[in-house]
Amino acid sequence: MDRKNIVIIGSGNVATHLAIAFLKAGHRILSVISRNENNAAQIAEKTRSHYSSDFAAIPAETDFIIVAVKDEAVSEVASKLNGGNAIVAHTSGSIEMNVFQNYANNYGVFYPLQTFHKEKELEINQVPFCIEGNNKATENALSELAKSISSNIHLVNSENRKVLHVAAVFACNFTNHFYTIAENILAEKNLSLDILRPLIKETALQVMDKSPSQLQTGPAVRGDEKIMQQHLNYLATKPELAELYKKLSESIKNFKR
Amino acid sequence: MDRKNIVIIGSGNVATHLAIAFLKAGHRILSVISRNENNAAQIAEKTRSHYSSDFAAIPAETDFIIVAVKDEAVSEVASKLNGGNAIVAHTSGSIEMNVFQNYANNYGVFYPLQTFHKEKELEINQVPFCIEGNNKATENALSELAKSISSNIHLVNSENRKVLHVAAVFACNFTNHFYTIAENILAEKNLSLDILRPLIKETALQVMDKSPSQLQTGPAVRGDEKIMQQHLNYLATKPELAELYKKLSESIKNFKR
Repeated sequence: MDRKNIVIIGSGNVATHLAIAFLKAGHRILSVISRNENNAAQIAEKTRSHYSSDFAAIPAETDFIIVAVKDEAVSEVASKLNGGNAIVAHTSGSIEMNVFQNYANNYGVFYPLQTFHKEKELEINQVPFCIEGNNKATENALSELAKSISSNIHLVNSENRKVLHVAAVFACNFTNHFYTIAENILAEKNLSLDILRPLIKETALQVMDKSPSQLQTGPAVRGDEKIMQQHLNYLATKPELAELYKKLSESIKNFKR
Repeated sequence: MDRKNIVIIGSGNVATHLAIAFLKAGHRILSVISRNENNAAQIAEKTRSHYSSDFAAIPAETDFIIVAVKDEAVSEVASKLNGGNAIVAHTSGSIEMNVFQNYANNYGVFYPLQTFHKEKELEINQVPFCIEGNNKATENALSELAKSISSNIHLVNSENRKVLHVAAVFACNFTNHFYTIAENILAEKNLSLDILRPLIKETALQVMDKSPSQLQTGPAVRGDEKIMQQHLNYLATKPELAELYKKLSESIKNFKR
């Protein structure tokens, strides 16, 4: 792909990782625009770009405006942009593409399906990008931009992006909460999560090339009522956890494998 | 550790992995005993040992009898053993050490906290082993045996082993079920779990050196009621999943971070 001129809106984790990845791929970051000028200045320094807090200050030669702000801010940012013919795309899993329809001719979604942490290096080349565009040319252009930084590109429309987000809440947000619950259960007895960490890792890694439905283990799938009752007795003083234990066990038992 | 003489009872995944690991560590497998003679013969071939289906046929020179059978069979196997002064230990997360008290002088627990698959090689050196013994000498001997195959050894009494098992059900069995639910939600729209796999992996790997309570993301922890309602609307035709979504979201919101 040719060198493109990119404006980044936002200065959080996603904005930071994308700006650096674009620079590494040979693109030019024209400007980083954020309400938080300090953060914007930090990314600007790393990517040899300008920074600003004026959302309307889009240079005329801009090819892409990547809106990497919090979900609740996308719509307001969209209304302030003045991007001419640049392609505008947000990076959210939950916001409709049409948030841009009254403010731009060419727009879409550039959604990296990964957890980003500012401090942590990430192999962005493995990150799945979900792309959507309001017309074929825009979709192609956003796909090409994504391909310049990752080898894992998917065309996903807004309806399916919502489905993906629901699935991600189960597979990632809820699983992290169960890690948290496990850590708490152990801490009460002065046991460290360290003792469980290898199993947590293996449980995730084994679904990388297999279907999780074929890998279910534990008392619920074997129908081991005695153990489940022991566990519920242990959780009797924690009614919320006991209820989660029951609901999940029922769900595992009812699942048609 | 000196070379020890070991009898393996059972012929499933745990029996197979342990027998091979003991052999690699320089120990001698005297015999593999299992109701299923075919499986026993397979492990015996891999570990240059004898096999039998007679649980009482324990050679006199045996140092350790490792009972790696299904939970529900441990008690029956224990009653049939004729092990003289050998140390007897089972590999279960849920069975009391005292299952052996009427049948052996020296007994304990040798519990590898990991998921085992027969076909799959595993770095057993990283597997946490939870050790318990009915006296100090037995505990030490079982610890030494565990140290000869793994560098991750923990002394855990039966009470805490139960707590560990409850925590593991949350952190591993329930998380795998959520992977399964995610796969199903995606499959309904012809979307592949592949698109979520990198995020599943990162979600697990990021808790290897951090507390999961500090890493929670998603609509529930941000209090994003609008997105949660959208997700619940999407799940309206799947009442069981909608209920799990609600319960988990509430639990995340209520958690004191």
